[in-house]
Amino acid sequence: MTRLLDTLALRPTDRRPIWVMRQAGRYLPEYLELRSRHAFQDAIRDPKVASEITLQPIRRFGFDGAVIFADIMTPLEAMGVDVTFDPGPRLTPMSLAEIADLPDLDPDRIAHVAETLRLVRREVPEDVTVIGFAGAPTTLLAYLLEGSGSKEYLVLRRAMHEETPELEAAIAKLATSMHAYLGMQIEAGAQVVQLFDSWAGTLPRSILEERVFPAARDTLSDLEAPTIYFAPGAGHALGSMRDVGASGYGVDWRIPIDEAWDQLGPAVAVQGNLDPAVLLTSPDRVHAAVRALIERTAGRPGHIVNLGHGIDRRTPLENVAALVAAVKESS
Amino acid sequence: MTRLLDTLALRPTDRRPIWVMRQAGRYLPEYLELRSRHAFQDAIRDPKVASEITLQPIRRFGFDGAVIFADIMTPLEAMGVDVTFDPGPRLTPMSLAEIADLPDLDPDRIAHVAETLRLVRREVPEDVTVIGFAGAPTTLLAYLLEGSGSKEYLVLRRAMHEETPELEAAIAKLATSMHAYLGMQIEAGAQVVQLFDSWAGTLPRSILEERVFPAARDTLSDLEAPTIYFAPGAGHALGSMRDVGASGYGVDWRIPIDEAWDQLGPAVAVQGNLDPAVLLTSPDRVHAAVRALIERTAGRPGHIVNLGHGIDRRTPLENVAALVAAVKESS
Repeated sequence: MTRLLDTLALRPTDRRPIWVMRQAGRYLPEYLELRSRHAFQDAIRDPKVASEITLQPIRRFGFDGAVIFADIMTPLEAMGVDVTFDPGPRLTPMSLAEIADLPDLDPDRIAHVAETLRLVRREVPEDVTVIGFAGAPTTLLAYLLEGSGSKEYLVLRRAMHEETPELEAAIAKLATSMHAYLGMQIEAGAQVVQLFDSWAGTLPRSILEERVFPAARDTLSDLEAPTIYFAPGAGHALGSMRDVGASGYGVDWRIPIDEAWDQLGPAVAVQGNLDPAVLLTSPDRVHAAVRALIERTAGRPGHIVNLGHGIDRRTPLENVAALVAAVKESS
Repeated sequence: MTRLLDTLALRPTDRRPIWVMRQAGRYLPEYLELRSRHAFQDAIRDPKVASEITLQPIRRFGFDGAVIFADIMTPLEAMGVDVTFDPGPRLTPMSLAEIADLPDLDPDRIAHVAETLRLVRREVPEDVTVIGFAGAPTTLLAYLLEGSGSKEYLVLRRAMHEETPELEAAIAKLATSMHAYLGMQIEAGAQVVQLFDSWAGTLPRSILEERVFPAARDTLSDLEAPTIYFAPGAGHALGSMRDVGASGYGVDWRIPIDEAWDQLGPAVAVQGNLDPAVLLTSPDRVHAAVRALIERTAGRPGHIVNLGHGIDRRTPLENVAALVAAVKESS
């Protein structure tokens, strides 16, 4: 077992595991160097490049988790959806009926992700945990309906209020496909999978409870690996989020992690929740913030240190090093 | 006294008052018609046009509140800051020290807002309440530091974590100036003022409590009219938000209004919190949503019906009419 797997099983460890969302990304010079030669989607589609990008932050910082380099939109290509990046995803907006009628995910069209996972699993040190991921049905639905990122996702929210049979069918299609995608990742070597529900937080709690969490539960159920569910901005529904049935839950930076844990309940692990903005300050401040964070979860196995959101591309490397050092010198 | 003023004083009324954030805006054909002849900032600067835009939704729908047509960035012009709109605000990003060194707000440079208020106050029916507003220090700071809207306001968040003397001085400057601006609006005829803290919700609760709410309190203290504080997305800090000392608090659409009210405490009024996305559905759904909302606050004076955020420009007029009718036929 690895430190991260033990923590997700609520078993005591010598210290907390640490990884960082978007750790394989634009704050790293070696990533920018590789990306100067490979476009974003080409890098994802080439297992040699994608595995190299996945491994870069492990080599530089010694994170405990290696999260695969891909995008939550990646598997939609294997359902016949054309997506480009600018830098956020762009696609032709679709109706609920069109989404419901998409073909099921074809694993052969996304075999490069499986191959990347196999390469990464072969390369990482034994104590580093390989993490796969997917976008949750609601969040993918948001992009498919709106055609891009949006500040408020009103088209998604309207669809949720209208509660049509097409809505149910569209969500079911995405849940089934992402379930298959995550299963494929686990088979290829992912030891943990995280489900990103990036836009769930724009929805009222009642809809989260009636639609969003059940869809996430369907996506994660009966997978052969521990699971993490992350819905930033959904702090207004932590009390019912455990219905997703994940092994652990990501917590954003808005509320103290111990309070979030109390609301999620004692039977789950928590992941988070440093404000990524702290990593824009100084090593001293990062160090102090890590100590304060760790104090809040002292004496309770089940805490994975991470940010409350993806790392910002402007983050100085020395602050990331300070983050990892502070976690590694703690117990 | 008007229905809205009575409600803010927690006095019983025949029915709940209703107004809608951004009610003088792009979903209205008569607004679009006027705007086809006047650019956004020109319309704000011309009291005849601005008062006409303020009155348009009162005439069409019979709202109980007439919120002045202006922008939260408008008073920054009277502090020497150049702002354009595209359609969101754009300006040259400033440092904390530069913000702290801005001249105090010059009421003469913003006399057009006072004149608009005087015209509106003269024109509205007696039972319609005239509402002024300003942006809260934290939210203005976010724009001044970043130069535009942002998804995550990381520059603001970094500044908040760094806690420098310049931060304190910049916030104090904005609080003093917006206090003066709101005082000027009240003198000119505003019967209620609302403070918009649009980006406070991106901050962790600890910073809201230490910096953001005190700055809002300083801005609102000792004004000669009732006040409303609205920080969408700040549901993670409702329990301490009452420290702002406002008469009432806006509540976004994410959590049930009665639960928000319980957290805010019994001594304040609440305003909200229909999901603006409901207004994109149908009159029947709007009607049902209003009834459910009103049931949640039944028997408690102090509820102003509003949306949980600004009205979307794609909103059908018949749904706004249904909203107002549903409120007016209730008790």
